[in-house]
Amino acid sequence: MSIATTPAATPLFNRVAIIGVGLIGSSLARALREYGVAGSIVAIDRSEDVVRTVRNLGFADLATTDLAAGLEGADLVVLAVPVGGFKALGEAIAPHLRPGMIITDVGSVKEAALRDIGPHLPEGVQFIPGHPVAGTEHSGPEAGFSSLFQGRWCILTPPADADPAAVDKLALMWTLIGSKVEMMDAAHHDRVLAITSHLPHLIAYTIVGTASDLEDDTKSEVIKFSAGGFRDFTRIAASDPVMWRDVFLNNREAVLEILQRFTEDLTALQRAIRREDGQQLQDLFTKTRAIRRGIIDARQA
Amino acid sequence: MSIATTPAATPLFNRVAIIGVGLIGSSLARALREYGVAGSIVAIDRSEDVVRTVRNLGFADLATTDLAAGLEGADLVVLAVPVGGFKALGEAIAPHLRPGMIITDVGSVKEAALRDIGPHLPEGVQFIPGHPVAGTEHSGPEAGFSSLFQGRWCILTPPADADPAAVDKLALMWTLIGSKVEMMDAAHHDRVLAITSHLPHLIAYTIVGTASDLEDDTKSEVIKFSAGGFRDFTRIAASDPVMWRDVFLNNREAVLEILQRFTEDLTALQRAIRREDGQQLQDLFTKTRAIRRGIIDARQA
Repeated sequence: MSIATTPAATPLFNRVAIIGVGLIGSSLARALREYGVAGSIVAIDRSEDVVRTVRNLGFADLATTDLAAGLEGADLVVLAVPVGGFKALGEAIAPHLRPGMIITDVGSVKEAALRDIGPHLPEGVQFIPGHPVAGTEHSGPEAGFSSLFQGRWCILTPPADADPAAVDKLALMWTLIGSKVEMMDAAHHDRVLAITSHLPHLIAYTIVGTASDLEDDTKSEVIKFSAGGFRDFTRIAASDPVMWRDVFLNNREAVLEILQRFTEDLTALQRAIRREDGQQLQDLFTKTRAIRRGIIDARQA
Repeated sequence: MSIATTPAATPLFNRVAIIGVGLIGSSLARALREYGVAGSIVAIDRSEDVVRTVRNLGFADLATTDLAAGLEGADLVVLAVPVGGFKALGEAIAPHLRPGMIITDVGSVKEAALRDIGPHLPEGVQFIPGHPVAGTEHSGPEAGFSSLFQGRWCILTPPADADPAAVDKLALMWTLIGSKVEMMDAAHHDRVLAITSHLPHLIAYTIVGTASDLEDDTKSEVIKFSAGGFRDFTRIAASDPVMWRDVFLNNREAVLEILQRFTEDLTALQRAIRREDGQQLQDLFTKTRAIRRGIIDARQA
C-alpha cells in the first residue's frame, strides 16, 4: 500500500468512486491516495477477479462489484471503462447519482462520451468529460502506478452549460496529481487525437499484423532484428485490444478522414520509390525532421 | 578524447580506415579506440568541416580528406557513407587498395553493397559487407558514442567465396565492441530489414509528413499532444534524410513488396472500421500483442 506523501489539509473530494480499475483507473486511485486528493477511494469493477486484486494491492478504501454500494456518498465518479461500455454504464449508474455529484470519464474519444453518457444523467449532476493523455502498453489493475500522469496533459471537454466551479475543481484534481490541464471542444479533441494517437496505433497494429503473417522463419528473424524501428511499433501495438477497438469504432469519422490523407501520402511516397525520385524522398525526410524539432522544443520528447 | 579502458594486448587490426564519419563511423572509431581493437584509427571524410570536427573531438589518430593518404597502411577499411555513395566510393578507393586488406561497409542494404562496391575491388582484397543494426535519430560526427553497438546485432553478409579467416576476424571486431554477430545471405538480409526497419521508417516519415501538412493551429496541437503515440513516430522520422533516401532507392523491390502487403492489411482494417466490425479489430489487436511478447522474450525490447 502506498502512503500519502503530501496529503492536503482537506481533501479536494470526500469520496471518489472509480468505475473500471484497469491501467488508468488504478493509476488514478494510487495517485489520488498518494497526493491526498480524496478522503476515500472506492474502486468498482464488474469483475470479481479485479476486485480481489484491488483488495490485495490495497490502493482503495473499498473495492466492490456493487454499483449502488460503491457510488454511495461519492462526490466524484470517474468512468474508466473502454469507450464502448459508456452507454450501458451511463444507464446503470443513473439511478444512483445525486445532484451535486461530478461525473467524469477518462476515455480517448470525447464526442462519444457526451453522446453515450450525457443523456442518461439526472438533473443537477455535472458531467465533465476528460482524457488524460497518458498510458503504457500494459493493462489491468496491477499495471497502474501513481506517477503515470506526471507531466502529462489531461484534456477536459466540458459542455457549454457546465458549472465553471465543477470544471475548476476537476481541473485542480488533475493538477494536484501532476498533470497539465487543457480545455478543448470535444469534436476538436477527437480530430487532434485521431492523428496524434489513433492513427499511430492503427498503423502500428497493421504493420505488426503484416509481420505476423510472414512465414515462420522470417517472422522469427523479424523479432530478432526488431531494433531497427519495428520494436517501437510493437510496443504501441501491444496496447489493450478492447480499449482500442472501441476507440476506432467511436472515433470512426475522424480516424477514417486522417487515414485517407495518410494513405494518399503513402501512395505518393510509394510512387517516388518506384520511379526512383530521390529528391522527393529527401525533401519529405528533411521536412519531418523539423516536426521532431518542434516536439523537442515543446518538451514533449 | 576517450581512453582505452580494456586494451587488447595486440590490437586485432593495425590500422583501421573509416570513410564517412557520421553517427555510425564516428561511433565505430570511438568504440575501436576504447576497446583497443585497432592500433591506429584513420577518419576519412570528403567534408573539410567534418575532418576539422573529428580533429577537435580527437577520436582518430589521423583525420583527412585525402583517400590515398588515409588508406595508406590500413588493414581494414570501413565504408560508412550513405548507400547511394557506394559506387563512386568503390571506384575511388580501388587504386589505393592492396591484397590482404579487408573491406567492409555498414550500410542498411546489402545486395546494393555487393553490387556497387564489389566489382571495383582488386584481386586479393576481401570484401565482407556488414550492417550494424544500431543507430539513433541524430547525425554527424558529434552524434556518435562508443557504446552504440553494445548488445546490438551486426549482420555480416560475406559472399560465398570470402576467406573464412577474414570473416572471422571482422566478426571478432564487432564482438569486441559489444555486438552480437549474425551471418546472413545479402538478399535475405534485405527482405528481413525491409520489414523491421525500412517499412517502419517509411511509415513514420509518411505520418509525420501528413501531420506537417495540417493547418497551423491543428499542427501546433499535434505537437503539444504528441505523447499519445505520434511522438515515437517523430523520433524515427528525424533520422538522416540522405541515408534513408538511399535505403529506399537501393532496397526498392523488397520495400515495395512489403509495402504492398502493408497497404492491403491497412485497407482491410479501414474497411472494418467503416463497417464497424469490432470483432475483426479486436482479433488483430490481440494477435499483435503476442508479437510484442515474442520480442520481450527475445530480449530485444
